[in-house]
Amino acid sequence: MERIITLTTDFGLKDPYQGAMKGAVLSINPKAKLIDITHLVSPGNILEGALILLDAYEFFPEGVIHAGVVDPGVGGARKPILIETKRHFFIGPDNGLFSLIAQREEVRRVVHLTNQKYFRKDISATFHGRDIFGPVAAHLSLGVDPALFGEEIKSLQSIEMPQPVKEGGQIIGEVIYVDSFGNLLTNIKRSDILSCGENIEVSIKGVSLKGIRNTYSSAEKGAVIALISSSNHLEIAVNSGMASKIIGAEVGERVLVKVSR
Amino acid sequence: MERIITLTTDFGLKDPYQGAMKGAVLSINPKAKLIDITHLVSPGNILEGALILLDAYEFFPEGVIHAGVVDPGVGGARKPILIETKRHFFIGPDNGLFSLIAQREEVRRVVHLTNQKYFRKDISATFHGRDIFGPVAAHLSLGVDPALFGEEIKSLQSIEMPQPVKEGGQIIGEVIYVDSFGNLLTNIKRSDILSCGENIEVSIKGVSLKGIRNTYSSAEKGAVIALISSSNHLEIAVNSGMASKIIGAEVGERVLVKVSR
Amino acid sequence: MERIITLTTDFGLKDPYQGAMKGAVLSINPKAKLIDITHLVSPGNILEGALILLDAYEFFPEGVIHAGVVDPGVGGARKPILIETKRHFFIGPDNGLFSLIAQREEVRRVVHLTNQKYFRKDISATFHGRDIFGPVAAHLSLGVDPALFGEEIKSLQSIEMPQPVKEGGQIIGEVIYVDSFGNLLTNIKRSDILSCGENIEVSIKGVSLKGIRNTYSSAEKGAVIALISSSNHLEIAVNSGMASKIIGAEVGERVLVKVSR
Repeated sequence: MERIITLTTDFGLKDPYQGAMKGAVLSINPKAKLIDITHLVSPGNILEGALILLDAYEFFPEGVIHAGVVDPGVGGARKPILIETKRHFFIGPDNGLFSLIAQREEVRRVVHLTNQKYFRKDISATFHGRDIFGPVAAHLSLGVDPALFGEEIKSLQSIEMPQPVKEGGQIIGEVIYVDSFGNLLTNIKRSDILSCGENIEVSIKGVSLKGIRNTYSSAEKGAVIALISSSNHLEIAVNSGMASKIIGAEVGERVLVKVSR
Repeated sequence: MERIITLTTDFGLKDPYQGAMKGAVLSINPKAKLIDITHLVSPGNILEGALILLDAYEFFPEGVIHAGVVDPGVGGARKPILIETKRHFFIGPDNGLFSLIAQREEVRRVVHLTNQKYFRKDISATFHGRDIFGPVAAHLSLGVDPALFGEEIKSLQSIEMPQPVKEGGQIIGEVIYVDSFGNLLTNIKRSDILSCGENIEVSIKGVSLKGIRNTYSSAEKGAVIALISSSNHLEIAVNSGMASKIIGAEVGERVLVKVSR
Repeated sequence: MERIITLTTDFGLKDPYQGAMKGAVLSINPKAKLIDITHLVSPGNILEGALILLDAYEFFPEGVIHAGVVDPGVGGARKPILIETKRHFFIGPDNGLFSLIAQREEVRRVVHLTNQKYFRKDISATFHGRDIFGPVAAHLSLGVDPALFGEEIKSLQSIEMPQPVKEGGQIIGEVIYVDSFGNLLTNIKRSDILSCGENIEVSIKGVSLKGIRNTYSSAEKGAVIALISSSNHLEIAVNSGMASKIIGAEVGERVLVKVSR
């Protein structure tokens, strides 16, 4: 029963919240193996949480339970859910947090969590991580059949994720995530770019970059480069520097890819 | 011997201190299950550490060992102690860090940690987390009788915790904690408020709030609301915003509750 | 197979990187016990990472595997390596990150990690923590013979670590690390100072400090003091304050020790 449960939340690392949630899990299954993906999602930023989880969940082994709690609508109309995919389980609010994963994975069933038998006795209207999602994850880790948590439902809330546009041989995309190295991750996929061959030109905020580099250190220090990220998207970076600061770009910044002549 | 040991410290997450403390625990009991409550208590802020631990400890299962190290007087006159309550153990400095818990729980015994047999061999005067508290927690997790760690003592240092005052049908309290969402947690308890019925008015910094909301999302975005926190205290929050910034309030800010007419 | 694997990286705690690396480890050895030393090394700062690991690794029990990934040259010419010392294993890039430890410990062998059998199938050029170092650490934790990971090599890259200079009865050193309490850690060792006896004067940025204190609280609040750090180096601190701010000193600031008359 040493099942792995990962946590992805916006609870922060100072406040008692992630600790209380872990306590609630361990009081049901003391042998659960808790792994933090992050607790530093920007408060209430569902898309950001979805993107972080998207780039981490798949590396975990089969059977892992991912609890995700970025839940600005906590206690309101959004449903608490469990999603079972071919390899994993996802537990949290039905607000789009898992919708990017649901698009990528084979979803086997979605359960609306309603059976209070598997919740904490006193349920705070503002802390379902501790009182619903953590306890349900813990019971699941002990082998409880997902069907016992509630009724199966057929649809999931989606999150709006900006998609790149292909226009006249160009791809117009945007920055969707800025990491702690200042690297700019875009919504343009490796597969979109590979079809363009090697003569690629990437433009962002007036900066033009020729070609796709392999590594940060293949350019001189301080040089702005385009490369393929470890999650197979177009990334704009600076060797030994923060691209976000040097270029002055944030999430939403427009990125253009064209075949150079 | 896979006992759970939680850690609550002001060591930060960058420096080697929390890692070294975990190493010291694991070198005595490699099977100990270490759970971080937080390492981000503001440096030396005992009251803040006490409040964070207070809102997290009780959700952990019976038998858990809580090591707490917010210890500005390390190496000085304050005693290293172990507190045994009905359900848990607490290990750390006797400087008030555990006094809010001791007021709430049935304390079975307090032991002054003096038996160097259970410390690391070389004891730094400035790092008792690594050299005393971690090792004692590890030995306790292996089943060592608390009586072997030192003499029983009868009194505990207290921390000054501001109490709300009831005056002419009003309650005058204050903000005691600001969380990472900017929510303002006060020292006014749910039970203080419930006796006032539904016609409640909460005032802070010239802002008047009528009624107690159930959830953040029950108000429009940006609205300031009063609600009951997940630890059953009066909380002032903003739906999808930082109350601390919008109201301009910090720890110590006065909060008034009255029955509105 | 519940071997302990520690992680020391500059991945940060928000991005998916440390979670993905942990997933990669656990997908090979689900029983591995992952302990974070830190993920908050300043991006690409090898010396800082080396110093943090240096002050944490030795407290872990025999047989522990330390994975360290501060790797600005990822995907480039630097070698991925495994170092076996008398008590521990170290896995990461050969860029000096482990060189301070190699100077202190008895190194038994260094292996150049080349056997792709123990890597992830698709290796990103920019994320060897997830695709090489994590997987190799996981396989090692399952008992794979280090010799199977690649060829033994004889030399290690070193990092430049500033050394104190003794001149005419004085020691001229410098601040090498500033911790989250604002304490200034220097490169001057306890053993350098003890030979000077008790009549010591420490100078930094025009501030003169007489004698070595035992504890922070032995001075009045706000006083600047010199003491011996928990890792046995000369440390400059302020009781209940941030020495770095009060003195205005950073890494690289000159520190002078002389026998006072």
